[in-house]
Amino acid sequence: MVKIGVIGGGQLARMMVPPAVALGLELKVLAETEGSSAAIAATQVGDYNKLDVVREFAKTVDVITFDHEHVPLVILETLVAEGFAVHPSPNALRFAQNKLEMRRRLGALNLPMPDWAEINTREELQEFLDAHGGEIILKTPIGGYDGKGVRVIRNVAEAEDWFVFAPLLAEEKVSFTRELAQLSARSSTGEHRAWPLVQTVQLDGVCAEVLAPAPDANDATLAYAVEIARGVAEGLDVTGVLAVEMFETTDGRLVINELAMRPHNSGHFSIEGSVTSQFEQHLRAVAGLPLGSTDMTGESAVMINLLGVDDSNDFVVHYAHAMQLHPHAKFHTYGKAARKGRKMGHVTVVASEAGWALAEARAAAAVLLHG
Amino acid sequence: MVKIGVIGGGQLARMMVPPAVALGLELKVLAETEGSSAAIAATQVGDYNKLDVVREFAKTVDVITFDHEHVPLVILETLVAEGFAVHPSPNALRFAQNKLEMRRRLGALNLPMPDWAEINTREELQEFLDAHGGEIILKTPIGGYDGKGVRVIRNVAEAEDWFVFAPLLAEEKVSFTRELAQLSARSSTGEHRAWPLVQTVQLDGVCAEVLAPAPDANDATLAYAVEIARGVAEGLDVTGVLAVEMFETTDGRLVINELAMRPHNSGHFSIEGSVTSQFEQHLRAVAGLPLGSTDMTGESAVMINLLGVDDSNDFVVHYAHAMQLHPHAKFHTYGKAARKGRKMGHVTVVASEAGWALAEARAAAAVLLHG
Repeated sequence: MVKIGVIGGGQLARMMVPPAVALGLELKVLAETEGSSAAIAATQVGDYNKLDVVREFAKTVDVITFDHEHVPLVILETLVAEGFAVHPSPNALRFAQNKLEMRRRLGALNLPMPDWAEINTREELQEFLDAHGGEIILKTPIGGYDGKGVRVIRNVAEAEDWFVFAPLLAEEKVSFTRELAQLSARSSTGEHRAWPLVQTVQLDGVCAEVLAPAPDANDATLAYAVEIARGVAEGLDVTGVLAVEMFETTDGRLVINELAMRPHNSGHFSIEGSVTSQFEQHLRAVAGLPLGSTDMTGESAVMINLLGVDDSNDFVVHYAHAMQLHPHAKFHTYGKAARKGRKMGHVTVVASEAGWALAEARAAAAVLLHG
Repeated sequence: MVKIGVIGGGQLARMMVPPAVALGLELKVLAETEGSSAAIAATQVGDYNKLDVVREFAKTVDVITFDHEHVPLVILETLVAEGFAVHPSPNALRFAQNKLEMRRRLGALNLPMPDWAEINTREELQEFLDAHGGEIILKTPIGGYDGKGVRVIRNVAEAEDWFVFAPLLAEEKVSFTRELAQLSARSSTGEHRAWPLVQTVQLDGVCAEVLAPAPDANDATLAYAVEIARGVAEGLDVTGVLAVEMFETTDGRLVINELAMRPHNSGHFSIEGSVTSQFEQHLRAVAGLPLGSTDMTGESAVMINLLGVDDSNDFVVHYAHAMQLHPHAKFHTYGKAARKGRKMGHVTVVASEAGWALAEARAAAAVLLHG
């Protein structure tokens, strides 16, 4: 029985438990705190910033993988040098940890991106502003997620407090019609499989809804999105699940926005919506097993995130009401205490008709959000 | 968070883990031995034949349910009298524990059965043999499963060693074209939902294959099977999943063969084949939550049991080969050591075409069985 060690005790580690149970893979989790989302698995608590902690954890498993991308590269590089199996490898993860490195590498691979520049000085920032219509996206290369570390700016003064984090990443503010995500997986043996392209709807920088497959995408777009995902997966030597978040521009191009080298919010629909979920696929990929079919189980799947509304509604209290009204909805909780804005769970509906799936998923989520 | 205590650490308890994780229900298991199939859950080891052990376990949860039907009724009756929630209740479980009581109760409910009689003497057995063509089914009322405690006999001498277990249950040997199972669930609030009728293929008294839905069943048969299941669930006051195993006779009738008051082998297809699996439904039912949709996710689902072939092939060793050839197959292991004849896992394929699902599931199982 292959033992898989997951660093990070969040909902992504938690959602790896069901496929691990089915496949008989032993899952161990190194969580940041007691009572994490993944505490239902064999979980120990420790600081992933400490080499000794991570090394001792690694000794108890056959392969190390991740719930998040924040483990210091130097720790992972040391483990690899010592002969431990780490998937994705630090050579791939560095591009997920540092958005400047990611842009450089994608550029070298000729993959489609917004215009971008490394910014070290106020002069460089002014120059980039002038060249891109006076309104751009500025990012801290490290540590951003869910809209954090991302800012729209119109002048240098708006970035003043960020120069301590320089180098910064400036990107053109792409004019886009919608956001898309291409989820795929690449196994440690090199096999690659992609799920259908999905549309993501973001609110305040946080994923709110995912429509699978992306409505009204033509065959050329679908094929190109997979080509991009394969280019990233192979070019960056990713193992495991890879999410490529993209903009569909007003002039019909696809450009890469962000990458994640782990199961991703845009792929939660796959638990019920795909023959092989992103969580099972990630386990297969890092364990070196052949990948499963990414065919959808129905015509359409819609996933709605359950973001905390206050400090008391944990959503589970409204399950009975929501289940009574929505027998087709699939409910997922992450076992977190209620907090405004927190990702605490999600609801998925798979159906033969996209409009019904969307309406039903929204209605079920509304019951949980508002009682 | 509702805490559900499962008595018995077999594969049925194990397969309750994934839906418990999704729904945020806390699952605890009282297993017979260390290293049980359900050892991945929060499991303690203890003897379910001891009142003190079961009572201490019951104190740690909100509701008690079961992986098997072997807990002594007197223990469960004591717990109910002491105010513990037990689902299904001992008043229902007695009919699953004792086939003579089951036959009496189903008779009182006018539900369709083979002819049967309670047998206490050799004379009564001879009389039943004479009245039913000289070949009948004899059963020990208690403790039989997977073909154990069931015997075809043609004369009294063949039953001689069983009279120590009297009273025995004699049943006419029904002439049937196939075996069917009607799975349904009834919640502690009285809600009842049925899955599609399935065909089961038994080899040596053990379930080998399940075809969902049952091929070529007409609407009247489908409706009648659900009516029977509802009659049993309500008449016996069952809570949780109920499996009603039936014969379809050569003259087109349905008659009840066996009952199980828990998730059942005939319902494993529902993990991928149904919007709500029997394991999720059982948890919802015993927790008093509304039941989920029992619609199928595809046109057809086929489940093949993986029965041990020897003491070395645990099937997991052949996963890579089987996954490579069969990317649509869903693999389930129960974490058991290899042993000939043992139920060690199963494979399910869901597809739009029944013939393809059957061929693919059989082929995937064959790789696991034979390498």
